[in-house]
Parts: sequence; C-alpha cells; structure tokens
Amino acid sequence: MKKEDPAKKYFDPKVTDRERAIFEGGITLGAIYHQFIGIPITPNKKIVSLIEKTIKEAMKLQPYKKDVQVKININKLRKPAKNMPYSYETLKGEHLDVTVKTCYGKAKATLRMRYIPKLKYTLMYVEKVSP
Amino acid sequence: MKKEDPAKKYFDPKVTDRERAIFEGGITLGAIYHQFIGIPITPNKKIVSLIEKTIKEAMKLQPYKKDVQVKININKLRKPAKNMPYSYETLKGEHLDVTVKTCYGKAKATLRMRYIPKLKYTLMYVEKVSP
Amino acid sequence: MKKEDPAKKYFDPKVTDRERAIFEGGITLGAIYHQFIGIPITPNKKIVSLIEKTIKEAMKLQPYKKDVQVKININKLRKPAKNMPYSYETLKGEHLDVTVKTCYGKAKATLRMRYIPKLKYTLMYVEKVSP
Amino acid sequence: MKKEDPAKKYFDPKVTDRERAIFEGGITLGAIYHQFIGIPITPNKKIVSLIEKTIKEAMKLQPYKKDVQVKININKLRKPAKNMPYSYETLKGEHLDVTVKTCYGKAKATLRMRYIPKLKYTLMYVEKVSP
Repeated sequence: MKKEDPAKKYFDPKVTDRERAIFEGGITLGAIYHQFIGIPITPNKKIVSLIEKTIKEAMKLQPYKKDVQVKININKLRKPAKNMPYSYETLKGEHLDVTVKTCYGKAKATLRMRYIPKLKYTLMYVEKVSP
Repeated sequence: MKKEDPAKKYFDPKVTDRERAIFEGGITLGAIYHQFIGIPITPNKKIVSLIEKTIKEAMKLQPYKKDVQVKININKLRKPAKNMPYSYETLKGEHLDVTVKTCYGKAKATLRMRYIPKLKYTLMYVEKVSP
Repeated sequence: MKKEDPAKKYFDPKVTDRERAIFEGGITLGAIYHQFIGIPITPNKKIVSLIEKTIKEAMKLQPYKKDVQVKININKLRKPAKNMPYSYETLKGEHLDVTVKTCYGKAKATLRMRYIPKLKYTLMYVEKVSP
Repeated sequence: MKKEDPAKKYFDPKVTDRERAIFEGGITLGAIYHQFIGIPITPNKKIVSLIEKTIKEAMKLQPYKKDVQVKININKLRKPAKNMPYSYETLKGEHLDVTVKTCYGKAKATLRMRYIPKLKYTLMYVEKVSP
C-alpha cells in the first residue's frame, strides 16, 4: 500500500494482513455472485466476453484487488433456437469460474469461485494464501 | 416476426400488438434497473463504456427487442481520490439514460428510463408508440 | 387516481390507459425477476413465506399497483441435507409464480410470471386486461 | 462443527479457522449489499421490518453463519408524499447496518457493514475475531 488504509481503525486490531486479504476477497466473491446472476446470456462469444470483462473491470474497483479473472463456461450455456425469442437463459453460479487476487500489506490471497459437481454447489474458497 | 410467437396463447387475446410492444419494453426497463444497480463504477471511460455495452447486448437478448441504448452520465459519477481505495461508487438509477426499442407484429414502441430531477425519480416511460 | 399523474406529460399522448396499466405491470415483473433471483432459500415454510411477503410488499410500492401476489413453489426447492452447510439453493425464475394487478385511470391489467415447462422459460405475460 | 466440512479440501491447507470464519463473513456482507440494494422501500415499519427479517433469515442459510442482524435506518428513508406514486425510494448501502456472526471450528468472527460518513463509504469490516 502506497498510502495508509483510512479504514484500518474500524477493524479489530488483532486482524492480520493475511486475514484482511482473505476478507477482501470473500467480499468480492459474494458480491460477484449476487450482482451478476440473472443477466441474460447466450453462448455467443461477443456477449460472453463482454460480461466477463465487465465483471472483471467493475470488481477490480473494490479495495485491495490485484486482479480479477472471470471465465464463463460457454459449453454450459443453452444454445438458442433460431427465431425463437425465448431460448436464451440467465447467468447462473454454475456457469462461473472466478479467480480474485487480493493483496494487503505483505499478504496475498487467491480466492476462487466455481461450481463443484460433487457438492452440487458453487463454492467460494481460499485457493492460496501467503506468506 | 418471421415465426409465430409460441407464447401468444398465454396472453389475453384482447392484447393488441401495440400493447405487447409496450409490455416487452416495460419488462426490459424494470429488469435493467434491478439487475445492474449496484455495480462498482468510476468515471473511467473504459469501464463506463464496458458497462453500457454489456447492458445493451445482454438486454437485447430479451424477446422483441429491436435496440437498446444505454448512456451512463459520467459527470454524475464521483471522481476517485488517488490511492484511496474507498472512493469508487456503485451504479444508481440517476446515472442511467436508457432507450429500449421494441417491435411486435406491426407495432413499434420506444421506451425510456432516465432520472427526472423535478420528480426526484428515475422514471420509466413510453416515449413513442406506433402506429 | 385520486390525483393527477405528474409523470403523464413524459409519455407519448397516444398511450391509452390500458397500455399504461400493462406497461406498469411489465416493469414490476421485470424488476421482481432481476431483483430477487439469487436469494438463498430452502423449502422451510417460514423463510419461503418471508420472501414471498417481502416481494409482495416491496413491489406494491411501485406506481399503480393494486395488488402483488407471490407464490414460491416449495416442491421445486432442494431439501437441505442435515448438517450439510452447502445444501441450500438460490431463488430461480422457475420457482416463482407472480401475479401483479395494476390499475390506471379506468383500465385494469393482470400480469403474470411463471415457468412454462413447454417453453423452458419463465414467461411474463398479460393474463387479463380491461376494459 | 458437528460434521466434517466437505469443502475443506478445496482450501489452501494453511488457512486457519479464524481466517475461514472471516472469509465466510466477508462473502455474506458482499452478498447482502449486491443482492438487496435496489429493493423499493419506504419508512413504513411493516415493510422495513419485513425486509430486515428476510435479509437475516435468507443470509443465515449461507455456511457457518451463527447470526445475522440487519437494521435499516428508517430515518434516512425519504417519506413518501400522499397520493404521489413516485415518492418511494430504493434500498441503498447507506441505509444498512448489518452484523454477521460466523463460527468455524474454534474461531468466531463478528463482521459489520455500515455507512461511515467520514469515508463516504459503506464499509465492510471485521469488528471482532477470536480467539
């Protein structure tokens, strides 16, 4: 951080840099799911890529993000029938594979959200944390 | 319409093409507000343009849309302070100026959503309908 | 209407009361889908009923609503496994059966949103309009 | 935990119970903001209380939540003018004061989201963590 964190005083002083990096990533994963689920989508590369980029660029604005990578699984999206106006679908958790990299002080965390078939659940987890 | 509308039978048969064009536009305006409000944003042209394009392309997938135009008022967005991680804001109705053009049978409608200072309200209205 | 509509002047003067009633209902259906999809939910009657009531009461605040009825199909919701923290799901269009009644001037409209298996689509339609 | 966590294997093994408790709370705060912002609301006690309860009960379904408390600041909500259909507003971050208590293994965390006037920002922070 180039500048002191003006929000630090609101946190329990026991919170470590690593915990903070993990916290900031958790916020962003929860935010992505609940902000973007529901957007109309088809397996059209232009639209898929636009939505991926928008999620990436918008969510990188949240504090202490180093990077956000968004992959929408185009194979899971229903192909629209020709001239059939009701055959698009809406974005769901199981379409998403998101990686958020955060950085706070000397700590770094990589957070992930993706659908885990075995759990039947779009899991958000801490893929890597350091030091 | 190149093909018969497979949903027509669910509608009250009294519904005219003009009413249907207006209905489809109302859905899209309500959807845009409640889907996209809350996205992190700054007055950065790249981000603003990405969000505009994503709203446009995603919402054009909804039935009977001829066009969707989205303008985010960049002047109303708070400028982030340098190195200040908490100075972006989130998209609000008052930032948006949206025009939706729909077409059903021989009817066309132009629907609009924009903030009306006099009403202190983000109004959705039928700007033009024909024939 | 007890009072003149302060937004009427923004509408194309050709718009009829019936069209307006339909428009206001379309907005609310689009809004409901895109606002509430994604809420965590289980087939617990207390939670289902709370979400139904919240959608109803919040959306009745939108202009020209006479009534909003919301039914979440509890049978379509996944039963959570005991002590299994990842077994709830999130609200989807196919869980919802919504009826919106609007009224503008002398016109009344009943709008509906429900999943139509034959279309594989959560359809929004005008169930009834009068006069 | 009465049962083993079936998602634990996806996490970096270095993640401590305290970090996990903090992570799960961050997810829920990010989710609450981006799911519920935009709901129509007025300073009517019945509606405010319904929305508070729905956020609480729905978000408690997310993993490892011990409690969720939601307070909407009724004094910050615009009073609707009589017979004026456009005078409600929509829920914003600055209306919310949310406390999330999480628990993972032997660790407990209290997470908070509230508007901080000095930062002009709806801050999410770790209020308390133990041991």
